Amino acid sequence: MRSMKLFRKWTVSLALALCVGLIAFHPANARDRDLASWNDGPARHAIIEFVRSTTDKSSPNYIAPDERIATFDNDGTLWSEQPMYVQGLFALDRVKMLSSQHPEWKTQEPFASILKGDLKAALAGGDKALLEIMMATHAGMTTDEFQKIVTDWISTAKNPVTKRPVLEMVYQPMVELLAYLREHGYKTFIVSGGGIEFMRPWAEKVYGVPPEQVVGSSIKTKYELQDGKSVLVRLPELNFIDDKGGKPVGINQHIGRRPVAAFGNSDGDQQMLEYTTAGIGGARLAMLVLHDDKVREFAYGPANGLPDSHVGTFSQALYDEAKQRGWIVISMQKDWKRIFPPGH
Amino acid sequence: MRSMKLFRKWTVSLALALCVGLIAFHPANARDRDLASWNDGPARHAIIEFVRSTTDKSSPNYIAPDERIATFDNDGTLWSEQPMYVQGLFALDRVKMLSSQHPEWKTQEPFASILKGDLKAALAGGDKALLEIMMATHAGMTTDEFQKIVTDWISTAKNPVTKRPVLEMVYQPMVELLAYLREHGYKTFIVSGGGIEFMRPWAEKVYGVPPEQVVGSSIKTKYELQDGKSVLVRLPELNFIDDKGGKPVGINQHIGRRPVAAFGNSDGDQQMLEYTTAGIGGARLAMLVLHDDKVREFAYGPANGLPDSHVGTFSQALYDEAKQRGWIVISMQKDWKRIFPPGH
Repeated sequence: MRSMKLFRKWTVSLALALCVGLIAFHPANARDRDLASWNDGPARHAIIEFVRSTTDKSSPNYIAPDERIATFDNDGTLWSEQPMYVQGLFALDRVKMLSSQHPEWKTQEPFASILKGDLKAALAGGDKALLEIMMATHAGMTTDEFQKIVTDWISTAKNPVTKRPVLEMVYQPMVELLAYLREHGYKTFIVSGGGIEFMRPWAEKVYGVPPEQVVGSSIKTKYELQDGKSVLVRLPELNFIDDKGGKPVGINQHIGRRPVAAFGNSDGDQQMLEYTTAGIGGARLAMLVLHDDKVREFAYGPANGLPDSHVGTFSQALYDEAKQRGWIVISMQKDWKRIFPPGH
Repeated sequence: MRSMKLFRKWTVSLALALCVGLIAFHPANARDRDLASWNDGPARHAIIEFVRSTTDKSSPNYIAPDERIATFDNDGTLWSEQPMYVQGLFALDRVKMLSSQHPEWKTQEPFASILKGDLKAALAGGDKALLEIMMATHAGMTTDEFQKIVTDWISTAKNPVTKRPVLEMVYQPMVELLAYLREHGYKTFIVSGGGIEFMRPWAEKVYGVPPEQVVGSSIKTKYELQDGKSVLVRLPELNFIDDKGGKPVGINQHIGRRPVAAFGNSDGDQQMLEYTTAGIGGARLAMLVLHDDKVREFAYGPANGLPDSHVGTFSQALYDEAKQRGWIVISMQKDWKRIFPPGH
């Protein structure tokens, strides 16, 4: 009898070990571990449950692979946007680089102030000054030349506060989320107020998002044959602003389908999240990153009860709409185990 | 000795049979059979050789999967465009359908002439008249509503000359070519002067091209919350003309990569084919469909020595450029075994 009991005990243990083993190596769980930089909390749960229920054919929330469109804002959602948008740093560096070709900038605003290092004075001219800076630094070359300029610049660019490479200030939990969604048949798009041609040169390497899945703001281009070579010249003229109400417009123009999941962090993303969820049946996932981690990144914005930093504003009104519509607010402090990629 | 010889003969035969078998069932050959509606000739050969050399890792012409972008014009390249663009038929039908809501159209040009069935008089007003017709019939509803309008219309629309459903007048060889390229890792895009929202509702079903891979002309849209539902309203204002020099612009805007293969049929495709080939190293494939089959489809255009039909003009200048740049002109008469899908 004793040996029989012992045998049973062993059998049960073995069965348990096998079960544990099977659970541990079940693909779904293997994938869940991909969200390794997310703390076990409501945000992570919501992602896993959304993906599970929309990819399970027996679920009433099932979404066909073709319709699995997920859109991500970039600045403040996929990488740091403080103390200013990375593209702003690029524009300022370009002004300095180009100044020898533009002696008139020494006395001409907003360039004179930039060259003196007085950003506040440079931006005192408002949108007009900003547009002048953008056009002087982003237009006048071919698209191929611009791609090379951006690729070269971004490989060495550093955040002025942390002194860390800007490409190392992408959010590891969001990089994992992009990959997790793709593993489950989702097509991931960037939909950013930033320049479409500023993001494309590095978005595939950094986020796994190819050029044709990047939507952004743009200037006009013009087709030309130059010495028998076919080129597009970047013109100093706005084409499209992919922000606020422009995000659903850009999504429709580029993707032609309504997303079923959308991720943002500011008032500029409000309409994209509405377009994804408002008045729509079926399972939808909408999330907003709240910058509330002063120690590991930055803390800013009215939704945190902090002053408006004018970059990536997350207003109290957006916070209230999120609560009312069931959008999930991601607390960087509570929901993220780590913020930046390991090894940095 | 005799038996040895016999044995050898058998062995050789067996080896040959195995080789032949292997060749016959090699995937590349299985795929070649997919171009079944192409006659064995220079056009079909060029396609197969291009695909072979760009997908063979040991070939100097190898192209990485990410860069395998192929763009196709639609009207006259993927389906019939005579006696007028299908979208033109749609606009005329819409004028008739909407006329009860617009009693003023009875006396107001260009609508009055359309309602009287006098298309020539209606179009006498030139581009201004055309734009008025387009805006009156394509704007003023949400994008979701327009999608339904197009889907409903196209399911019953017929070509006025052949009386056949317009969706059955797609070119079977080109449908096979789209599939053949995709089977070899190419991403296929439509790049058409036609309306992007006019093509998307049916392009996936008919061509296997999803909405996010359709590039076309567009009008502006505006984001709105209507009774809590998030919509885009189509405005009577031109946004973008995806024709001639606009095609490379549209390709860069939507795809962000230069195509390595491009297919067209008219002067409107000239710049797209240049953008794909001119001044570029590496293997590139550029082809133009020549409408020279009066019996099975239509024959028109200066490149055929025929009068300009003003729809899908293939000028002598384009023909000369094609010869000079090594673009392949597809003769519908000689290169295509069948023109329309079987069973119709």
